[in-house]
Amino acid sequence: MNPRMSSVLGRHPAAMASSEAREQLAACIDSCLVCAQICKTCADACLGEDGVKGLVGCVRLDLDCAEACYATASVLSRASGGLDRVTRDLLRVCSDVCAACADMCAGHAEEYAHCLVCAEACRDCQHACKDLLEVLP
Amino acid sequence: MNPRMSSVLGRHPAAMASSEAREQLAACIDSCLVCAQICKTCADACLGEDGVKGLVGCVRLDLDCAEACYATASVLSRASGGLDRVTRDLLRVCSDVCAACADMCAGHAEEYAHCLVCAEACRDCQHACKDLLEVLP
Amino acid sequence: MNPRMSSVLGRHPAAMASSEAREQLAACIDSCLVCAQICKTCADACLGEDGVKGLVGCVRLDLDCAEACYATASVLSRASGGLDRVTRDLLRVCSDVCAACADMCAGHAEEYAHCLVCAEACRDCQHACKDLLEVLP
Amino acid sequence: MNPRMSSVLGRHPAAMASSEAREQLAACIDSCLVCAQICKTCADACLGEDGVKGLVGCVRLDLDCAEACYATASVLSRASGGLDRVTRDLLRVCSDVCAACADMCAGHAEEYAHCLVCAEACRDCQHACKDLLEVLP
Repeated sequence: MNPRMSSVLGRHPAAMASSEAREQLAACIDSCLVCAQICKTCADACLGEDGVKGLVGCVRLDLDCAEACYATASVLSRASGGLDRVTRDLLRVCSDVCAACADMCAGHAEEYAHCLVCAEACRDCQHACKDLLEVLP
Repeated sequence: MNPRMSSVLGRHPAAMASSEAREQLAACIDSCLVCAQICKTCADACLGEDGVKGLVGCVRLDLDCAEACYATASVLSRASGGLDRVTRDLLRVCSDVCAACADMCAGHAEEYAHCLVCAEACRDCQHACKDLLEVLP
Repeated sequence: MNPRMSSVLGRHPAAMASSEAREQLAACIDSCLVCAQICKTCADACLGEDGVKGLVGCVRLDLDCAEACYATASVLSRASGGLDRVTRDLLRVCSDVCAACADMCAGHAEEYAHCLVCAEACRDCQHACKDLLEVLP
Repeated sequence: MNPRMSSVLGRHPAAMASSEAREQLAACIDSCLVCAQICKTCADACLGEDGVKGLVGCVRLDLDCAEACYATASVLSRASGGLDRVTRDLLRVCSDVCAACADMCAGHAEEYAHCLVCAEACRDCQHACKDLLEVLP
């Protein structure tokens, strides 16, 4: 994770007192951004495969997952004061779509190595969102 | 609403058979895009007001609402086959954040006319998301 | 075009004095949003076609065009004070990618009716961006 | 940088032969994502400052910079085949807006530590975009 992510959160005028909470927030944001980007690249890699016709569902879910992850990261950039209800609901949706995308990509992981990387990034993000929901009040 | 929105949905290979359902989908997408954009412009208008210090919560909620609306519109562009679970959950989150943003902006509507326009766009989008959840299986 | 788009621009504290200029700004924003959304739906429709393998380039360009259009609309939501250099450069890039996407989709328009709708939306947006560059100082 | 970013690029069916080129692409994508997110957080931090009225220009430029960076990262997720003209133009716009945002934030860096972090992230991204333009054909 880029050290600037938690650094900027620590310099926010409403910064969380606990550096552990800030690190958790930064980690979740980082997981969302990485997952969004890996999903987009996995979608593009699927498009380049000979077997693209069998990967259409994967491309679509990759793109949906990327949207949810990016929206979540954006909303979390304004979460220094804590998680409000909408942010919590969005984290749950994000965790769910990451779980679904991880499952789908894992199903192609033996044949397509980019799907293996994507499944791992989605699983990470699924857990990072759940963890943040438990840690932050 | 731009007629091309429902036109392109009607030319999708998995287009919904019912033109009414397609119109409802197009209407919800349109409401999300309009709301996202109005929220961003309302945020910028708030930033330009002398009383910006009292409008900071409005700017933040406007930006959150815009993110949720835009992600929802994007995911709905892939919903010709129907609403899966994640799309339904995202529609609920979007409806909720629109309701919250409508309430906040309505509270400033007498003083700031851009907040009045924004409250109306948010209320529309709140209902369009709810309606789509009820109409589409 | 949704009337709220120009309405909110007219209620911005730094609103352009000329209602014609505001209408032009609103029209360009609207064209960008419509084009972004039509491109995403066209990409999804291409994914659903039997001949998806021959449409991969179209899916990719659709997605690129959608990103440029959406970023441009977002930046234009903060352009009530006029177009700064970055906004002007972004409008040029947006106009260019719309022209490229219009050309590509027009090439498939006889076979795929969604590409015809997309080509028209891209052409509109190409011109709306160019027009705004000429009208606004 | 998250190692999965270059890993997924290396598993793309059209992956660049040179691992150095792939690393450079991954590094630029990473810089764009970090810059987008830091800019959004810096904007939110500015909103929380007592002196927000003097920081409005910074909030706006932060938000514009975030949009350009994110669009660039997205388009670069489809750049495994190389940089086409639109991608190159977008990289130039992104580099320019990062330079402008770095300059503005650097002007507040003594007073606001989040602006210092943001200025650094913007400067990094400015150079990463320029570097990619020079390295990739």
